Amino acid sequence: MSIRKEILERVGAKEGDVIRIKKKGKTYEGILMPHHEFSDENIVTIKLKNGYNIGVEVNRDTEIEILEKGEEKERLKASVPFDPEKKTISILGTGGTIACYVDYRTGAVHPAYSADDLAFSAPEIFDVCNVRARIVYQLLSENMEVDHWRRLAREIAKEFNGNAVSGVVVPHGTDTMSYTAAALSFMLKNLTGPVVLVGAQRSSDRPSSDAYQNLLDAALVASKTDIGEVVVLMHGESSDSYTVIHRGTKVRKMHTSRRDAFKSINVPPLGIVSNGEIKLLQGYRKREEGEVLVDDKMEKDVSIMYFYPGMEPDDIPRKKGIVLMGTGLGHVSSRLIPRLKELIDDGTTIVMTSQCIYGRVNMNVYSTGRDLLKIGVIPCEDMLPEVAYVKLMWVLAHATDMEEIKRLMLTNLAGEISERSYFA
Amino acid sequence: MSIRKEILERVGAKEGDVIRIKKKGKTYEGILMPHHEFSDENIVTIKLKNGYNIGVEVNRDTEIEILEKGEEKERLKASVPFDPEKKTISILGTGGTIACYVDYRTGAVHPAYSADDLAFSAPEIFDVCNVRARIVYQLLSENMEVDHWRRLAREIAKEFNGNAVSGVVVPHGTDTMSYTAAALSFMLKNLTGPVVLVGAQRSSDRPSSDAYQNLLDAALVASKTDIGEVVVLMHGESSDSYTVIHRGTKVRKMHTSRRDAFKSINVPPLGIVSNGEIKLLQGYRKREEGEVLVDDKMEKDVSIMYFYPGMEPDDIPRKKGIVLMGTGLGHVSSRLIPRLKELIDDGTTIVMTSQCIYGRVNMNVYSTGRDLLKIGVIPCEDMLPEVAYVKLMWVLAHATDMEEIKRLMLTNLAGEISERSYFA
Repeated sequence: MSIRKEILERVGAKEGDVIRIKKKGKTYEGILMPHHEFSDENIVTIKLKNGYNIGVEVNRDTEIEILEKGEEKERLKASVPFDPEKKTISILGTGGTIACYVDYRTGAVHPAYSADDLAFSAPEIFDVCNVRARIVYQLLSENMEVDHWRRLAREIAKEFNGNAVSGVVVPHGTDTMSYTAAALSFMLKNLTGPVVLVGAQRSSDRPSSDAYQNLLDAALVASKTDIGEVVVLMHGESSDSYTVIHRGTKVRKMHTSRRDAFKSINVPPLGIVSNGEIKLLQGYRKREEGEVLVDDKMEKDVSIMYFYPGMEPDDIPRKKGIVLMGTGLGHVSSRLIPRLKELIDDGTTIVMTSQCIYGRVNMNVYSTGRDLLKIGVIPCEDMLPEVAYVKLMWVLAHATDMEEIKRLMLTNLAGEISERSYFA
Repeated sequence: MSIRKEILERVGAKEGDVIRIKKKGKTYEGILMPHHEFSDENIVTIKLKNGYNIGVEVNRDTEIEILEKGEEKERLKASVPFDPEKKTISILGTGGTIACYVDYRTGAVHPAYSADDLAFSAPEIFDVCNVRARIVYQLLSENMEVDHWRRLAREIAKEFNGNAVSGVVVPHGTDTMSYTAAALSFMLKNLTGPVVLVGAQRSSDRPSSDAYQNLLDAALVASKTDIGEVVVLMHGESSDSYTVIHRGTKVRKMHTSRRDAFKSINVPPLGIVSNGEIKLLQGYRKREEGEVLVDDKMEKDVSIMYFYPGMEPDDIPRKKGIVLMGTGLGHVSSRLIPRLKELIDDGTTIVMTSQCIYGRVNMNVYSTGRDLLKIGVIPCEDMLPEVAYVKLMWVLAHATDMEEIKRLMLTNLAGEISERSYFA
């Protein structure tokens, strides 16, 4: 048994108790937190009154005393509430800041590992719905890949089909949340309820955390709406006044650190949640009857290429599919065109999006665009580059004929193409 | 002599005259426009009353008559005004929509070829300054490359040093205008006046063109301010009420088609121009005394790599320099790290920016970021990815020692790093 466990057992300290640690003349007071697998064995983590977690390394000379038993929290944990009058949602944990612990060895943040902890981090959720919570995987979202999307899609379908939940909440790292949202949007068909991806820009050990509000509002949307789409829910502005419901195929992380980093691009958001009230702002797909279907075949040999002045023909690799992020209305330099033609003639599907992010590609205006159309580059309307990437993976796994691939890329499958640019 | 020339000569029609064309029972009236080199030989181009240009193919049966001689315009052209009381600016044409003609064979837009035409397209410029105008090159800006930036830098210095102009206006295609602005910002030292890059999102044959207002306001900034920086001037909102002066290293095209597509990122703009009045909003570098210096050495073996889930280690090429566009605060998937380490150990400089576009990278928060720092990836603060790309080319041509490269990348050379994020 480690020294940490030994000392805590001796005084009978349990997670949730308020304790005092005395070490080398210094005193620390706070709530005893769960031990984190990434922490060194003899680190005791306590949450200070100011909301921050600290780690204290203990040894045989360290004194610990209990100031207050954490009965309230213990009782809550012991009795996960279930109210047959309320709808049930599933929370499927995938990792990310919304469920993060600080690693006191390095000072960096690592993902947490219990979905129950997640639900209990915002116990007000139980006022609006019952919760089934489990962990699908534990990942910093920059490490998520195609097979993680596929597994998540199947786990979500299982919750709807096997457990008849009204909606599924997916806490997710924000880095690639919009990629996952797009992937689920193409993979999940006939959704019988909302799939709400939710993240946090600031971890819950920080006073400015957005984790609590986002999770609570995500549970509201999952239990109280008739949406039958994949959506992303995040803060709407830098204070806590409202959260925004974004369509999964039209949302993008547009700031490295702000809590309102996620923006609907080229369309208004689907709705907002303010003070527990959900306002739906525009047309959305309604929940369907029957079974949720999963169609998760994906062609992985696809890449995103960001065009820049000076890009060489050899910089463009041979792939099954390439998403170009061109300039302006959808251009690359003319001297790349022979290379692109060679690849297309050999069977590569090349589609065009814009590095402007906002707006719609239009390759009929300038000669470069027309030349690119002529060799078979497919213009992706107002699709986000990341969404075009995910869609191209899906389309290439469902069609081999070039005309059929083009038809599918230009068909609005999951709200990824808007009829007109709202900011044209 | 072509049929077109023959018919026009016979009736004595000159560019600028209002003419009527009768062909197969149809009648067209408008101002006779210059013949464009890209048009078919027998296409007569006229500007209709509604502002649009059309092309009419003429043959021996076509009747043309002159309705009104374009005397006013002719007289203006004959006498380029020069007022010794006024300051002189240079206009250096490089191509782009701001100087575009429609190619009536294809319907696409091609760059124009006379800087005088440019100046005369907004003759009100002569009310505020004298104009020296010449063409440096004629390019759709997606075709601009490193050597074009270098040539332009030298031509700009020549105007300041040889002709003592108060400022230089560079009409430029909007697609890569921010890349060029960044390149000039690093190449030009000790600027004795403003360098104003200006573009148009709608060509001047369209009633909604922003070419006129942007060019006029650019001339104002070039002649009336004491700015000693490279700036970009474009529309501030979708009507014509004001234009915005952006710092050349902090601006990005953020919409494919809107006239206010250009945005200052992470900082407020330097100023605005409204009804002929210039308001400077924040600190800027003042014009220097003496000679403008050009330091245009660039390492071309640099690329931008856009990270996406599923990116393979082999997708990252061997280059002298690589700008990563990572997720969030500056991440890529952990399984790419060995490949990045291998490249860095072999001498590649790898720097990190964010695909969020807005905000600042911070690689100390999460374990992935710290791992990337540990292998030597350089975090580019709040630099735009495109600016980091141009800067890395410049830095690699001026330093070989890894510590010196890092020091230069993290030194604010041309306003590319802001002290803090204004939208943190």
